[in-house]
Amino acid sequence: MTFSVGLLGHGTVGAAFHKLLDERVDAIEASTGLRPEISGVLTRSRGEFDDLLERSDLIVELMGGLEPAREYILRAMAAGKHVVTANKQVLSQHGEELYAAARAANVQLRFEAAVGGVVPVIRVIHETLAAAHIERVHGIVNGTTNFILSEMARTGASYGDALRQAQELGFAEADPTEDVTGKDAAAKMAIIARLAFGVEVHLDDVPYEGIDHVTADDISYAKDLGLSLKLIGSAERIDSGLAVRVYPAFLYGGHPLASVNGSFNAVTIESPAITEITLSGPGAGGTQTASAVLGDVISAMIPPPTLPPPALDIELVRDVESAFYLYLEVADRPGVLAQVAEILGLQGVSIKSVVQKGLGDDAVLVMVMHPVLESRFSAAVELLARLDFVRARPRTLRVIEETFEEKSA
Amino acid sequence: MTFSVGLLGHGTVGAAFHKLLDERVDAIEASTGLRPEISGVLTRSRGEFDDLLERSDLIVELMGGLEPAREYILRAMAAGKHVVTANKQVLSQHGEELYAAARAANVQLRFEAAVGGVVPVIRVIHETLAAAHIERVHGIVNGTTNFILSEMARTGASYGDALRQAQELGFAEADPTEDVTGKDAAAKMAIIARLAFGVEVHLDDVPYEGIDHVTADDISYAKDLGLSLKLIGSAERIDSGLAVRVYPAFLYGGHPLASVNGSFNAVTIESPAITEITLSGPGAGGTQTASAVLGDVISAMIPPPTLPPPALDIELVRDVESAFYLYLEVADRPGVLAQVAEILGLQGVSIKSVVQKGLGDDAVLVMVMHPVLESRFSAAVELLARLDFVRARPRTLRVIEETFEEKSA
Repeated sequence: MTFSVGLLGHGTVGAAFHKLLDERVDAIEASTGLRPEISGVLTRSRGEFDDLLERSDLIVELMGGLEPAREYILRAMAAGKHVVTANKQVLSQHGEELYAAARAANVQLRFEAAVGGVVPVIRVIHETLAAAHIERVHGIVNGTTNFILSEMARTGASYGDALRQAQELGFAEADPTEDVTGKDAAAKMAIIARLAFGVEVHLDDVPYEGIDHVTADDISYAKDLGLSLKLIGSAERIDSGLAVRVYPAFLYGGHPLASVNGSFNAVTIESPAITEITLSGPGAGGTQTASAVLGDVISAMIPPPTLPPPALDIELVRDVESAFYLYLEVADRPGVLAQVAEILGLQGVSIKSVVQKGLGDDAVLVMVMHPVLESRFSAAVELLARLDFVRARPRTLRVIEETFEEKSA
Repeated sequence: MTFSVGLLGHGTVGAAFHKLLDERVDAIEASTGLRPEISGVLTRSRGEFDDLLERSDLIVELMGGLEPAREYILRAMAAGKHVVTANKQVLSQHGEELYAAARAANVQLRFEAAVGGVVPVIRVIHETLAAAHIERVHGIVNGTTNFILSEMARTGASYGDALRQAQELGFAEADPTEDVTGKDAAAKMAIIARLAFGVEVHLDDVPYEGIDHVTADDISYAKDLGLSLKLIGSAERIDSGLAVRVYPAFLYGGHPLASVNGSFNAVTIESPAITEITLSGPGAGGTQTASAVLGDVISAMIPPPTLPPPALDIELVRDVESAFYLYLEVADRPGVLAQVAEILGLQGVSIKSVVQKGLGDDAVLVMVMHPVLESRFSAAVELLARLDFVRARPRTLRVIEETFEEKSA
């Protein structure tokens, strides 16, 4: 059965959503029994809203900005249609009106993509933490500023140079004002705080401070103190009230957000019963945001499953490629490393790095190999173990070298 | 309206769940309209299952182990009751039977707490990633082994000493076999892989290797190579098949799991459309696991909301306490630091640490303050800015000093 999705907006995220939906439609139909199809696309220059609404079971709003997005969302809900949006502006400034209208019309308004890219903050607050008393939320909710601050820390670059680099790489817009002043993060924190604490929070209620005044000196001196600088959105209970703010802050190394680098977003939610949950992932990118939108569309189509579907027939593989670390205690005499390398090479095992250390009459060879089939590596280790100059059973451990992004690149 | 929850098991997690439910029952009733109440508790020595089932709308199974847990879950579902469980053993060994029975009875079987403590892996796979083609899952899914490995890396301790310390602190059981051999992690990865890839994966299908053979030398040499050691559960597509395994592995510093320390769990899910999502949080602890169970119970009671509830009346606070960093360029002459400290002190601002560096005729003072009301700190900075020996506008940034756990301690 077809499920008609009316799409408002066809910019970066809109186009990515359209493409992703087309790619995944067969898989979605297989798992849900419904086939989502784009019933039409409305942009500023093309299409007619009433006509599109008539033909749609659900409206996806990816135009951004306040109007006409607000009006279209209200009219769609009044017509009894669920709405999925990624629009942080309209939610942080007209949230109460939209939430009340959704309640009155008894429709769903979903907006996971509005606050943390692909990071499922909204769902975790609504569902996982449905019964939790949340004390504090700390978030890195703007990928542009996190990229700039990470570059400044990594290379010692000035704010201006790091911003230009972010622009060249597509992590910052030509006009970066909303990002670097903290306003974008403030809008997201207003939405998160509304959900996490049940308090009405308008964008105007969130004091924000950006990163445009941060200097390379600040970052370098703070490094001496063991701190790293992040643009933090925070919402926390203070006595009987709530404080919601955005500001650049230094974090100690042990903080779960301290190691979030590049354009990634991350949110830490703290509550006595759970201690804390941290969610992280790419903060920007059309496909990533589209993916969050699509997750919301599917949840609005049909209640999420609690069970896996009947099992597919896919083979379970046991012998796979891994990179390995090898620790060898050997006699410290000429030619040992050459023989070890030769045996490894004959088995197709290629050495990536070696550290050799003397240990009295013996030496220790610590090596990391390039990825190789585990069965071949095991065979090579068996051969090494039999050599007369090898003093103890070789020790091996796997090495996970690359992140997924690097692997795919 | 009352919603009756029958509780099987009253050990650490069962008792924590009972307590947490009692604490949160008013809040849950306010947000859902249903009041969950424990209809009875069955333990090995007390209670009668049929009677409890009769009186319950939903069954929470926290006995652990295979039998009678499996039988009770099946009988509850056959009677048309939803079931929430944290039982990784029964799911990794009888999952297909249980999923099929839930499907046949058209009831929910929820098990978030079975795989990652409070980390919402199951929900994110089922909902956020409903349409995603998942390529790989990497997880630190055993808190005991992560604590031991973190301690070995931090202190240089041997495996045996770190294990004893984990036992003393309650992070490892008296008999740690299931944890340190990797079997516990293998059960969790079997469940995760079943959901993420739609493939039938039994515990027996997951080769696992533990950490009991890891030496302090391995960790110390790997540090030279920039690597940190974690017990990793992995499930990944290999050509047309799937490989699911558990093994200790070295991670490079940039990997999202490399910085997960102590008894925390974390799972990274990789997919082309989203790049990756990483979820982390406490991996152990009765209250944390109970919290995940309660989230499942509430989701089974009533479909999760997509909207925030009508807003509460809580005050938005603007002047709060923060720790601050202060960067001052001053003339390099005697008495400067004393005057700065005096002005700060008079405003109630207390210095935590200072770094002073010469800079020709000038000096730079970089200070971190103890937490203070922001208005007081701003007032102190205004006074400092007016001093004749202060050469440039003072620069300030906030510092987030402690994690939530430290703050609460």
